[in-house]
Amino acid sequence: MTTLPHRIIIDCDPGHDDMAAILLAAWHDDIVIEAITSVCGNASVENTTNNALRIVEAFKLDVPVYRGAELPLLNRYEFPAEFHGPSGLDSAGVDLPQPTIRAESKHAVQAIIDLVDANPGEITVVVVGPMTNLALVLAMRPDLAGTIKQIVFMGGSATEGNITPAAEFNIWADAHAARMVFRSGVKLVMFGLNLTHQTLLRRSDIAAVRAAQPGDNAVPDIMDFYCGTYYRFAGQDKPGAPLHDPCAIAYLIQPDLFEIQQLPGDVIVGDDQSYGQTLIDIRPQDPAHDARKKNVGVAMKADAEGFAQLMTQALIWGAGRLSAQS
Amino acid sequence: MTTLPHRIIIDCDPGHDDMAAILLAAWHDDIVIEAITSVCGNASVENTTNNALRIVEAFKLDVPVYRGAELPLLNRYEFPAEFHGPSGLDSAGVDLPQPTIRAESKHAVQAIIDLVDANPGEITVVVVGPMTNLALVLAMRPDLAGTIKQIVFMGGSATEGNITPAAEFNIWADAHAARMVFRSGVKLVMFGLNLTHQTLLRRSDIAAVRAAQPGDNAVPDIMDFYCGTYYRFAGQDKPGAPLHDPCAIAYLIQPDLFEIQQLPGDVIVGDDQSYGQTLIDIRPQDPAHDARKKNVGVAMKADAEGFAQLMTQALIWGAGRLSAQS
Amino acid sequence: MTTLPHRIIIDCDPGHDDMAAILLAAWHDDIVIEAITSVCGNASVENTTNNALRIVEAFKLDVPVYRGAELPLLNRYEFPAEFHGPSGLDSAGVDLPQPTIRAESKHAVQAIIDLVDANPGEITVVVVGPMTNLALVLAMRPDLAGTIKQIVFMGGSATEGNITPAAEFNIWADAHAARMVFRSGVKLVMFGLNLTHQTLLRRSDIAAVRAAQPGDNAVPDIMDFYCGTYYRFAGQDKPGAPLHDPCAIAYLIQPDLFEIQQLPGDVIVGDDQSYGQTLIDIRPQDPAHDARKKNVGVAMKADAEGFAQLMTQALIWGAGRLSAQS
Amino acid sequence: MTTLPHRIIIDCDPGHDDMAAILLAAWHDDIVIEAITSVCGNASVENTTNNALRIVEAFKLDVPVYRGAELPLLNRYEFPAEFHGPSGLDSAGVDLPQPTIRAESKHAVQAIIDLVDANPGEITVVVVGPMTNLALVLAMRPDLAGTIKQIVFMGGSATEGNITPAAEFNIWADAHAARMVFRSGVKLVMFGLNLTHQTLLRRSDIAAVRAAQPGDNAVPDIMDFYCGTYYRFAGQDKPGAPLHDPCAIAYLIQPDLFEIQQLPGDVIVGDDQSYGQTLIDIRPQDPAHDARKKNVGVAMKADAEGFAQLMTQALIWGAGRLSAQS
Repeated sequence: MTTLPHRIIIDCDPGHDDMAAILLAAWHDDIVIEAITSVCGNASVENTTNNALRIVEAFKLDVPVYRGAELPLLNRYEFPAEFHGPSGLDSAGVDLPQPTIRAESKHAVQAIIDLVDANPGEITVVVVGPMTNLALVLAMRPDLAGTIKQIVFMGGSATEGNITPAAEFNIWADAHAARMVFRSGVKLVMFGLNLTHQTLLRRSDIAAVRAAQPGDNAVPDIMDFYCGTYYRFAGQDKPGAPLHDPCAIAYLIQPDLFEIQQLPGDVIVGDDQSYGQTLIDIRPQDPAHDARKKNVGVAMKADAEGFAQLMTQALIWGAGRLSAQS
Repeated sequence: MTTLPHRIIIDCDPGHDDMAAILLAAWHDDIVIEAITSVCGNASVENTTNNALRIVEAFKLDVPVYRGAELPLLNRYEFPAEFHGPSGLDSAGVDLPQPTIRAESKHAVQAIIDLVDANPGEITVVVVGPMTNLALVLAMRPDLAGTIKQIVFMGGSATEGNITPAAEFNIWADAHAARMVFRSGVKLVMFGLNLTHQTLLRRSDIAAVRAAQPGDNAVPDIMDFYCGTYYRFAGQDKPGAPLHDPCAIAYLIQPDLFEIQQLPGDVIVGDDQSYGQTLIDIRPQDPAHDARKKNVGVAMKADAEGFAQLMTQALIWGAGRLSAQS
Repeated sequence: MTTLPHRIIIDCDPGHDDMAAILLAAWHDDIVIEAITSVCGNASVENTTNNALRIVEAFKLDVPVYRGAELPLLNRYEFPAEFHGPSGLDSAGVDLPQPTIRAESKHAVQAIIDLVDANPGEITVVVVGPMTNLALVLAMRPDLAGTIKQIVFMGGSATEGNITPAAEFNIWADAHAARMVFRSGVKLVMFGLNLTHQTLLRRSDIAAVRAAQPGDNAVPDIMDFYCGTYYRFAGQDKPGAPLHDPCAIAYLIQPDLFEIQQLPGDVIVGDDQSYGQTLIDIRPQDPAHDARKKNVGVAMKADAEGFAQLMTQALIWGAGRLSAQS
Repeated sequence: MTTLPHRIIIDCDPGHDDMAAILLAAWHDDIVIEAITSVCGNASVENTTNNALRIVEAFKLDVPVYRGAELPLLNRYEFPAEFHGPSGLDSAGVDLPQPTIRAESKHAVQAIIDLVDANPGEITVVVVGPMTNLALVLAMRPDLAGTIKQIVFMGGSATEGNITPAAEFNIWADAHAARMVFRSGVKLVMFGLNLTHQTLLRRSDIAAVRAAQPGDNAVPDIMDFYCGTYYRFAGQDKPGAPLHDPCAIAYLIQPDLFEIQQLPGDVIVGDDQSYGQTLIDIRPQDPAHDARKKNVGVAMKADAEGFAQLMTQALIWGAGRLSAQS
């Protein structure tokens, strides 16, 4: 039996869809964000930490921010500036000012360890960036695989990739770290591209938010910006844009929106072309003779309409709060 | 403009579905089998050659058989005897006697080279086993990539594998050979598991064959045997069994049954877990800015009903011919 | 200019030759051991921590022990019990009792970080086990590559391996960690098998220790045990046994015993057979046109006689101290 | 008991040191060259075939030349034009004219198969280029591993590489082919860089050739050119230049010049950095318990003085023959 609200750490590299995930979590009563931890991913950890602080301050969230891993464990890469801008959170539809608040002095890895130690079995870690911090947590303290309640993450894919034919960016950006987490024994729920391409925020959803909160409001502006970036890459004829990172939060709020299959999964690190692929064994097998170790809960299907409604309601709520705050 | 009939070499490791492909090709007017070449795959090349001879003699085909590669180029493996029996073509529903005819003395690789040299641009090679022979052909004579009309093959997958989570058996059995062929520049049309799981021979189709040719007949017996093996592995509730190898022949007869996408493809050899994966880049891209080298025509969708009808008609025709011969 | 004494952390997995290294360091005035940190390697971290405590207590060393990484970052392996016994430090020629003292509560990784932060540029880390702890230190805090004075390690080889044809045990046991350290930018001095096979403790050296300290004494007993194990594997005709781990300490005491070449080095992780190889680029190049990044100081030649004298003198001193203590 | 003369095929990619090997073989009574087969290596197979024909014609050898593999099996690379010039045999100290003779029409792979089939157990194949042709021979006809007398090759290294830190050029240029040959079961004798760096042609040796055959003579001119190229790369102070390819011929003439150890060997293909390394297991082991499969005879030590004398005498003989011919 799940005790509400969910107490979560958001481990992220904001990033525009990280922001959407943070806001969805912050604005929903079923969720309490205990900490935001930053990691190198869409941009340098200096920038992603700064972006997390900008979000926390701009939206008046009461959450400590901890700076995490500066580099992937082994393989370096170029930051994908074409998507998120050099800062990792360039013009987001609204102008998020530079922060006046600062990150905590404790390292994100230590912060996660301490929070889990203080609340064994209670903390869900939502990872929407590379898994470097969690890999370090579990390397320092393998026993936490049993006391972290679960890791719910956006990353990987049971089908095709994005950054390469085989790999999704978050996993690819630190595939060794992801492999360490996949093999750690911790409870894992994966929202990969195979799923997130099913959960669109449609033009009509944003219109509904604007209609509900007329007047200047950052919330629909941000969503318009986010979807607009997608349309520029994928085609202006698309009816909506996939919301990757918020899926992990939506799952906590309303798990029945998703069909989760418990499957064997691992991360490929040995081949240049398939480096960072999450190899999920979706082969059907006679249940009576299936001895495979099924270490990952993989979200395979979404209730697209239900997800869009959940997101729209949350955005309307957030837009209302924002109007009231300003 | 395609000139009919198709003149083909069937490069195979029979194997029950190889037999189905050979018979479909042999029994259809649009196809002339110039040669059958054997390769190590489902069983040793000694056995697959013997099986090819058994099929040729039992069904009174007038086709020379050439023995090909004895071993994969690099990686050895155990033969999958649980599927095809130790001989590679154990009890096939009918009892195929040991052959009295013999294979030609010329090596299969040389036979393919000679046939293509004698008929530049005219010969389609249908590969329904590992690609070792073709890799050797193209290593000996890279220029044949321009004079082989096309290679149509059953192998690989744009989604999941069978022998491993990532790999289909034919490609996995000699992944280095497959990579050589994929990179050779030869025209390739791929029928992978993603496609062949769509093309079922249903129980009702076999019933229709029996109804059309009442009395003892090997054709529906073979098909019952073939599908029965599948049901034992996949579940007795299945409505039909996938016909892997015959898809490649059906494509030659009636190409509009299949939707083919020209896509970038390669074969993974660098990672133990994904060894033998055919990595097909199915990511959508803005056509105006798509500079990827699209070296493989990948069958993505099948007209399942049309395929079942084609197969059923061919089987009825073959069953009739068999009755007439006996 | 080196300031004496050297302030060192010994990061180890005792292990018999780890013990020899610890004692050589503890018994020499030029060296102060600030901490001993344990790691999974020759045996489980539970056992190697316990062994470190046994050594500290038995030899009355005044050094804190910190428990470190429990598992290699990625690849698991079987402990080499045939060399060191199940405990990792079975009968060592003397009977080291179980410890009554305990390890500090702080994690070894945090202990290393804190010691270096408190003494920037002052601390040498001597690694004589797998590099897991150091990899975690440098992943948590990449900036420490500039404030750790140097890492002097026994591991790898510029020629052949031991645990495999290509790899030496310490590096092989966590090759990913070693690669992280090699690529971190920290100052590295490597004592690999190519070197340690040159630095023998001879039968005559042990005899000299016995002659100098007649009567019961653990020091020559331990050395007889250590060398005896080697002779059983390598042949009873050998004139001496290689002292692997103590080389790293001897280098600090008397650096002119060794010829160090600054060379490019990396750790192989991508091939099963050469996994864990330290690939040192020893190709001669025209110095004027040599643009290679030379990240490792590799000990290539030893003054074998000088080393044997240093070791013998240290052992006589230690044997004397032991006699005086008891 | 060896029957003299040795009947050999020289499989090569001339190349200046290939030429030296061909001439040494051609000029010595103990050796009969049955065929020269060309392969892609130092230059395109078009150029190496042409160069073989230039050598055969210029030095009036009576040997058929067969053109072989055009490309490595899998991995492409840039030809090392800085060493051999764009043609692969640019100005060689003498001006070798373009050939008027032509290569045989039979493919080199078929030529090797036919020669071995016609002379089972009699033919030594001397490989001084990449092993592509031999890999294809043994893939087409695995049984020839038992009827090729032996493969004596220049390639690989038991220590460091040249083209990369780990790999020697001939093996690196087609590492998959080399692995196929190493694993084929054929008798192998390897002359790697570890050996050929011991066998120098000294300045004094060339002076002795000039003194013995005063007047214009191509032989010392070629050797001066060859050594001069080496000195430009390795330093003008060097006393001599290593003769790589001729070692394989010298071994046939006078095997006692070399110490050969039968050792386990394989070729690394799975890691970018060590790709093409010949991993030779030189670890000493108790002979009574050594179960390793020792598939390669590895030349470990050379009698440098004896080799230099053999070469000098051969060159004097050749220079004399050349004077007599012109």
